[in-house]
Amino acid sequence: MISPKVPHVIYGGDYNPEQWPEEVWREDVRLMREANVNLVSVGIFSWAKLEPRPGEHDFGWLDRILDLLHDNGIMANLATATASPPPWLSVLHPESLPVTEDGTILYPGARQHYCPSSAAYKERAADLVGRMAGRYGDHPALAMWHVNNEYGCHVAECYCDASAVHFRGWLRDRYGDLETLNEAWGTAFWSQGYGDWGEILPPRSAPTFANPTQQLDFRRFSSDALLELYEMEKGILRGATPDVPITTNFMGFFKPVDYWKWAAREDVVSDDSYPDPADPEAHVRAAASRDLMRSLGGGDPWVLMEQTTVRVNWRRRNAPKRPGQMRLWSLQSVARGAEGIMFFQWRQSKAGAEKFHSAMVPHVEPKESRSWHEVKRLGEDLTKLDSLLGARGEARVAILLDWNNWWALELDSKPSMDVRMVAGSHSPDRPPYDAIYSFYKPLFEANVPVDFAHPEADLSSYGLVIAPNLYLVTDEAAENIKGFVREGGTLLMNFFSGISDENDHVRLGGYPAPFRELLGLRVEDFVPMSEGEENRIVAGDGAGYPCDTWADLIHPEGAETLARFASGFYADCTAVTRNAFGNGLAYYLGARPSGDYTDQLLRRLCREAGIEVNADAPPGVEVVRRWTGDASFLFVLNHNEEAVEVGLRGPAKDLLTGSEHERSLPLEPFGAAVLLEG
Amino acid sequence: MISPKVPHVIYGGDYNPEQWPEEVWREDVRLMREANVNLVSVGIFSWAKLEPRPGEHDFGWLDRILDLLHDNGIMANLATATASPPPWLSVLHPESLPVTEDGTILYPGARQHYCPSSAAYKERAADLVGRMAGRYGDHPALAMWHVNNEYGCHVAECYCDASAVHFRGWLRDRYGDLETLNEAWGTAFWSQGYGDWGEILPPRSAPTFANPTQQLDFRRFSSDALLELYEMEKGILRGATPDVPITTNFMGFFKPVDYWKWAAREDVVSDDSYPDPADPEAHVRAAASRDLMRSLGGGDPWVLMEQTTVRVNWRRRNAPKRPGQMRLWSLQSVARGAEGIMFFQWRQSKAGAEKFHSAMVPHVEPKESRSWHEVKRLGEDLTKLDSLLGARGEARVAILLDWNNWWALELDSKPSMDVRMVAGSHSPDRPPYDAIYSFYKPLFEANVPVDFAHPEADLSSYGLVIAPNLYLVTDEAAENIKGFVREGGTLLMNFFSGISDENDHVRLGGYPAPFRELLGLRVEDFVPMSEGEENRIVAGDGAGYPCDTWADLIHPEGAETLARFASGFYADCTAVTRNAFGNGLAYYLGARPSGDYTDQLLRRLCREAGIEVNADAPPGVEVVRRWTGDASFLFVLNHNEEAVEVGLRGPAKDLLTGSEHERSLPLEPFGAAVLLEG
Amino acid sequence: MISPKVPHVIYGGDYNPEQWPEEVWREDVRLMREANVNLVSVGIFSWAKLEPRPGEHDFGWLDRILDLLHDNGIMANLATATASPPPWLSVLHPESLPVTEDGTILYPGARQHYCPSSAAYKERAADLVGRMAGRYGDHPALAMWHVNNEYGCHVAECYCDASAVHFRGWLRDRYGDLETLNEAWGTAFWSQGYGDWGEILPPRSAPTFANPTQQLDFRRFSSDALLELYEMEKGILRGATPDVPITTNFMGFFKPVDYWKWAAREDVVSDDSYPDPADPEAHVRAAASRDLMRSLGGGDPWVLMEQTTVRVNWRRRNAPKRPGQMRLWSLQSVARGAEGIMFFQWRQSKAGAEKFHSAMVPHVEPKESRSWHEVKRLGEDLTKLDSLLGARGEARVAILLDWNNWWALELDSKPSMDVRMVAGSHSPDRPPYDAIYSFYKPLFEANVPVDFAHPEADLSSYGLVIAPNLYLVTDEAAENIKGFVREGGTLLMNFFSGISDENDHVRLGGYPAPFRELLGLRVEDFVPMSEGEENRIVAGDGAGYPCDTWADLIHPEGAETLARFASGFYADCTAVTRNAFGNGLAYYLGARPSGDYTDQLLRRLCREAGIEVNADAPPGVEVVRRWTGDASFLFVLNHNEEAVEVGLRGPAKDLLTGSEHERSLPLEPFGAAVLLEG
Repeated sequence: MISPKVPHVIYGGDYNPEQWPEEVWREDVRLMREANVNLVSVGIFSWAKLEPRPGEHDFGWLDRILDLLHDNGIMANLATATASPPPWLSVLHPESLPVTEDGTILYPGARQHYCPSSAAYKERAADLVGRMAGRYGDHPALAMWHVNNEYGCHVAECYCDASAVHFRGWLRDRYGDLETLNEAWGTAFWSQGYGDWGEILPPRSAPTFANPTQQLDFRRFSSDALLELYEMEKGILRGATPDVPITTNFMGFFKPVDYWKWAAREDVVSDDSYPDPADPEAHVRAAASRDLMRSLGGGDPWVLMEQTTVRVNWRRRNAPKRPGQMRLWSLQSVARGAEGIMFFQWRQSKAGAEKFHSAMVPHVEPKESRSWHEVKRLGEDLTKLDSLLGARGEARVAILLDWNNWWALELDSKPSMDVRMVAGSHSPDRPPYDAIYSFYKPLFEANVPVDFAHPEADLSSYGLVIAPNLYLVTDEAAENIKGFVREGGTLLMNFFSGISDENDHVRLGGYPAPFRELLGLRVEDFVPMSEGEENRIVAGDGAGYPCDTWADLIHPEGAETLARFASGFYADCTAVTRNAFGNGLAYYLGARPSGDYTDQLLRRLCREAGIEVNADAPPGVEVVRRWTGDASFLFVLNHNEEAVEVGLRGPAKDLLTGSEHERSLPLEPFGAAVLLEG
Repeated sequence: MISPKVPHVIYGGDYNPEQWPEEVWREDVRLMREANVNLVSVGIFSWAKLEPRPGEHDFGWLDRILDLLHDNGIMANLATATASPPPWLSVLHPESLPVTEDGTILYPGARQHYCPSSAAYKERAADLVGRMAGRYGDHPALAMWHVNNEYGCHVAECYCDASAVHFRGWLRDRYGDLETLNEAWGTAFWSQGYGDWGEILPPRSAPTFANPTQQLDFRRFSSDALLELYEMEKGILRGATPDVPITTNFMGFFKPVDYWKWAAREDVVSDDSYPDPADPEAHVRAAASRDLMRSLGGGDPWVLMEQTTVRVNWRRRNAPKRPGQMRLWSLQSVARGAEGIMFFQWRQSKAGAEKFHSAMVPHVEPKESRSWHEVKRLGEDLTKLDSLLGARGEARVAILLDWNNWWALELDSKPSMDVRMVAGSHSPDRPPYDAIYSFYKPLFEANVPVDFAHPEADLSSYGLVIAPNLYLVTDEAAENIKGFVREGGTLLMNFFSGISDENDHVRLGGYPAPFRELLGLRVEDFVPMSEGEENRIVAGDGAGYPCDTWADLIHPEGAETLARFASGFYADCTAVTRNAFGNGLAYYLGARPSGDYTDQLLRRLCREAGIEVNADAPPGVEVVRRWTGDASFLFVLNHNEEAVEVGLRGPAKDLLTGSEHERSLPLEPFGAAVLLEG
Repeated sequence: MISPKVPHVIYGGDYNPEQWPEEVWREDVRLMREANVNLVSVGIFSWAKLEPRPGEHDFGWLDRILDLLHDNGIMANLATATASPPPWLSVLHPESLPVTEDGTILYPGARQHYCPSSAAYKERAADLVGRMAGRYGDHPALAMWHVNNEYGCHVAECYCDASAVHFRGWLRDRYGDLETLNEAWGTAFWSQGYGDWGEILPPRSAPTFANPTQQLDFRRFSSDALLELYEMEKGILRGATPDVPITTNFMGFFKPVDYWKWAAREDVVSDDSYPDPADPEAHVRAAASRDLMRSLGGGDPWVLMEQTTVRVNWRRRNAPKRPGQMRLWSLQSVARGAEGIMFFQWRQSKAGAEKFHSAMVPHVEPKESRSWHEVKRLGEDLTKLDSLLGARGEARVAILLDWNNWWALELDSKPSMDVRMVAGSHSPDRPPYDAIYSFYKPLFEANVPVDFAHPEADLSSYGLVIAPNLYLVTDEAAENIKGFVREGGTLLMNFFSGISDENDHVRLGGYPAPFRELLGLRVEDFVPMSEGEENRIVAGDGAGYPCDTWADLIHPEGAETLARFASGFYADCTAVTRNAFGNGLAYYLGARPSGDYTDQLLRRLCREAGIEVNADAPPGVEVVRRWTGDASFLFVLNHNEEAVEVGLRGPAKDLLTGSEHERSLPLEPFGAAVLLEG
């Protein structure tokens, strides 16, 4: 359960009443009740309203809103209002504005215009959080704290002088002395040796590629600098209200912030999720982010904190969700561990930068819009799912994900810049190779449940572990992975893994040094492929599969060859291997083959590891199971624009409609069912 | 008549004698007479020559030039020389340099390097203008004042601190108090509330989308800040020479400056026009800008102040006008209301950034170049057209154009950024959808005369009014348009119209709120289409037409459905409607169909509104008529590379050749005739 | 011979022992001996190691390295270590950091972060160079001085205030007084006249195109500012060690630096060469840069100072050299005049920005990598070539190249920006037209030896001179070229040549003014073609060839027409001409025809000029000859991925294998032979 104050599946959205006159508030609350809303996020961008001039506060309107909500049985996820400082802050403290890599100052006019290392911002934010906690800590409507908002979404790092000072302090903590830092950063290269801490800077615009470890540490520092802000607010809130759960909203696969570190410091994981409806695979990418959120929270329930009813406003062309798709993707979240479904935002703004972002209550008369009917239908659906609160799924496959590796892998000066970890949902372009997704997608299509795991985490519950481009690997992680295989696990690792240590120094001793024994091979060198260049790999049965992007020059040292390259100067060289290690098996993919090959390989590995592959569901139908102690819930989700008929293993009852189904379940286009099994 | 001092069709160009030794001047004047030049623009970039050091002036050379011109019967369009300050200004006043959105200072080395709000620039410019007016106000060569040059062409806005102060003053004038500004800007969104005027800034680089009303007001302010400069100069000139007409040169569909406001403050509208000869539709786009110029001046004659004889120098590849095309496009201007044809520039520079911009006198020996022969031929042609001075055309179709709407429509954060008002002639890329052009082109091809009109202007003389993407609409404009239809007019409006008010706040009450009754429908929501996505609309007769970019979800409330969408989740929904309102008809296009459909629709509307469609002329032949009290002139312009034969309704005499034509007129490739009818 | 201390073909690489513990050094030296290395470049990026804090020096490690090398018979190309200042320099002197055109400061973190005009940098660098010369001038390992490194590769110009002051001084030297500068820069245009030296600035970001002569002079100045740095170091070194040869490494066709001026001040020309193995014509482009290096040194031997064994790390995708290709391209360098083959770098870094740049000793165990075996093979090959030390080739064709023309041609505001001199090897995109390459490639394929020559150089040894787009030409160069033809030479000139003088002022008198008489024609005007636009030229025999990019409107004045344009408004106009002048012939190409036509034309011109075309070699086989007084060496280089058989004119012995070949030579894929002829 997300919050003891809301013993239901949560339903609601961001509520920004300060944009509207008070007569609208009463209509809001009436409509919330009509839609079965039970929680709203309040105050996220209210700082300027709460403190219109420095030290001059106005809480009256917020008092009235919280009372009104409480009077109507609606709880509040109360924000600390620190997400965007009022214009006066940067007039008083111009040095609080963020500065980009090339020295450009980012000014007020939008949002999030503060340097994460700004002392003035911290002091003023702490003061406001203290007042919020003091004033509303005992308010009966308070169900949860919403700290700040989307940390780092626009300003994930700052290159100003205050950030430089903060960075140096962080480095002192990490390295202790300059000699250790110089060694870690490899400053002997290009005459970069530091003789004094004061010489160290953020990786500002430089004549060419900046020191990679400097860049990597600056990413670590920047994530930690934001985390300090979160911890500061959390400390104040916890002190005042020890029992109120605290969250801050994540943004899926968001590169700048190490969510493993953050999630461990949250009571509840929450996520903002905006898949692009114009992307025919949007639901697959969405599923991956749902699984990430569940994994970040160790399997505990999480909240879909923001999504849109129909369209967003920040893409070049903002395609709408088609009828049913919003409900379908919401239920997908519940299937994958969410126990709360919320939206940005409750009532669509009539002014400002997001006025064309759809909302639960649209610009037009609600009852004349399909989106309001869908909002009400979903609200009603969720009231029928209280019985699955606390239900959990089980994944026997894990994909390893470490932000440190992600950062290091995507730094410049690599053999090929085409090798990317994740094409984030906020990224406008989708590079051709996306390490995580190329393994996630076949598993999704086979309806195999997947967790994401940190490479140093306990992997013993998994049968199959996949390590996509684990370029940077710590000693601990390397040992952990070897231990997993030694104890009987199956590992699938691919090219450019095990290459560097935590300082991004190449691990000598033959690539991939920490895994040579585990994999039973050595890699002599890499062959990055040009744009449009293709090769093929040929499997033992003679079948060939196109491959591109990269080839490893593999020399087996005990490993069995599963496929070989077909052409090039490395024709007939080994491309894919399998090696027995301890009680387990280690597979290695020294190429980037087409989806077909990866699909077959993963199905084979699942079979070998005793992991069920659900091949029965029609294409485009997602099937996910969750259990409580005494019940099993089967989510059947039709991502097709056409109706489908899905076969069942036994009779089951659809909790949403109340219908009983014997052998098969009919689903409308974009339809969904939650079956109580057995 | 443009100027009482030149009772002829004006012919000439920018004359920059300061680039040449005095012996060349005499050759210049001889050639001008040979080419029938009667007016030249002098001094546009002469500030540094006139005031080489602060306060140290040298007018002698200009005295000599003006005397020389006068002695040869050539009049001067005398510039105020303020278009580009000398280098010393920014040494004395570094704060006078313009600053871009991201803080980059723009330095001297090119031209127009001044902040429009710079006090130092204003003071120095006013001093110079005063001296020019004092010294030359009575010079017999003075026929017209040319204020500054192409206001805003390179620096249309400045983000410096002085601009911020100026902007605040402008906002105070507009809003009176901060509360009104906060309401107008919707600052309740994203915690942007201002508590003090001093907190307000230009929309400098920010972490994400800046406040749209801040952006919109900054565009309004920036246009007005330039207008203040113009008004300052005009005031000085008017005081000194009340009878000398004053102009400043426009640049066609130039987005940064609201030419409606400007034209009302000019004695003569003048335009710089550089269609790209590599564009096969260049003559259509050119025609639109000619019509705009005539419309800006309320139908009064205007001057084509700048064009090139052959090539420009600022595109990546500068295609030449083919033989005849320069004359053809010049006569097109006369056909559409111009009474002056001028060039940049008289003599092609041998040094500097525009030395490869063609001119009336080329680098090579004039008599060995085709361009000089074309210059002479055109000069001779124009001497034969004095009889049409004062002739006017008549347009019964108006396309609505409001810079406020243009600015608002193209701000960020819209449902689709593909919806653009105009692809300006100075813009390097041509977006796929261009609102004005998609309606203008079919009318041009049907030889239907078109005016441009402000949405608040008197529309009573028109039979058909077209409102392309009138997204932002004031109450006055909405009433005006409704009144036009009520009184019997025909309106064609398209999608994403009537959406926001003058503060860019969404008009609630169901889209498009101010026009629901007029159109007899409501729009539930918008469907922006992806790149490459297509649908079709199917008309009543079953014919289908591709459409893309956008679909409206229309619910007729009285309107008749003329076409429906063919597919998508909104298949069979209404796409095009017609509604009787008062004595008139209102059509609505909720899609962006192919040109075919728009073409047929417009021909139908013209027929219904009793507007003549000239379907007789061969393809590529433009036909335009102008009248004086007692004569009718028919321009027949062949934009084809091949000769054509054009049928005539009756005998007519070609003023250019003196030939009489009975039933048909033969035209050479790129040929033109001006027929005296009847 | 490159250095008297190394009387052999030089073999080695950059050696950066400071990146490794001392135990690795001994292994390094052992492997160097194994690979026949005889020279290594030491200390290039060692400043921070040699002077870790201002004024605090540590030379001990370098003493030990040089002793160790000497003890093992390996000589040092000792760097002055000034290529990248330590971080402390910019803490002490923030004004020493370079500033870009738009005001962005470039910070430490990478390399080369100094303003070339910085007094602080100069003073500190001079101090270090003095210490190096003093300490190591007598060291027995010292064979050559390596000044700085790749001057200008990342920071070729600086726009800071100190650079402005330096630029003004340079301009004073060039022009003497302001009036001359104003005339040279054409400041009468756009009101740019300077009244005081202090008003002059580098061409910083401006509202639009900056003054072209200002831009051109700033390029000249920037090249000279770097040259001043080189001269400063050279002066110190020469004073201390008059007999040690001095070099600094060039970068092929590197636009920012005028290598003609530089090479004249070097004892040995050396080059860094990184052709892209993904480019199927990489070996042709490489050959051109080899020929440039030989030409820069007046035919003297030069050193290939840097290349990679397999891959670089700075392209988006870094394709590997295929087996044999590194040896092949190395021997190509020797064939074209190199007497030293070196690499960046000896041992592949494990940290820093270039850790994925391949090296002689790879990350993996050397004996397990093909690259080490190739390194050893090449080292052994080179030991067999000492007999050709001092051998020279002979070219009877010269391509004219002047950096001043290159700079001027590629400035903005031209008729077409598609006309480019060179697509440099460091440039990421390859424009469609590349003036030098379009003539070089057919000659390479015909195995015709080619020199590059300055347009003012003595051309009397050549039979054919090619002047690709000699847009800017001095009076001296024009006279020189005319003299060459008058004395019997054959000239091939193409469009947009002879257009401007050294100040980039258009030469009046009809294009191309200085060459009208020589070519027997005048050009009326230019026709830049649009993207995708094509025409054809038709030769006298009726054969047609596609052409694009540009057409000249030619009027022959005595010249014979060889081909005409097929279509367009200039159909049937002359496109290619031939004119007898004095005792020679001048051809003019007023178009950009396909390679076929250029190929045929060049073969014809060679035949007429009595220059041998080697049409016997199979496609993809490069044949180059060098002679000493008593021996002739024939390099046969197979750039095909397949084996070939190459016919011989007589028996010859392969110096590399010792085999005798009678009539034909078999070559493996990417194979090479060096035949001792006769």
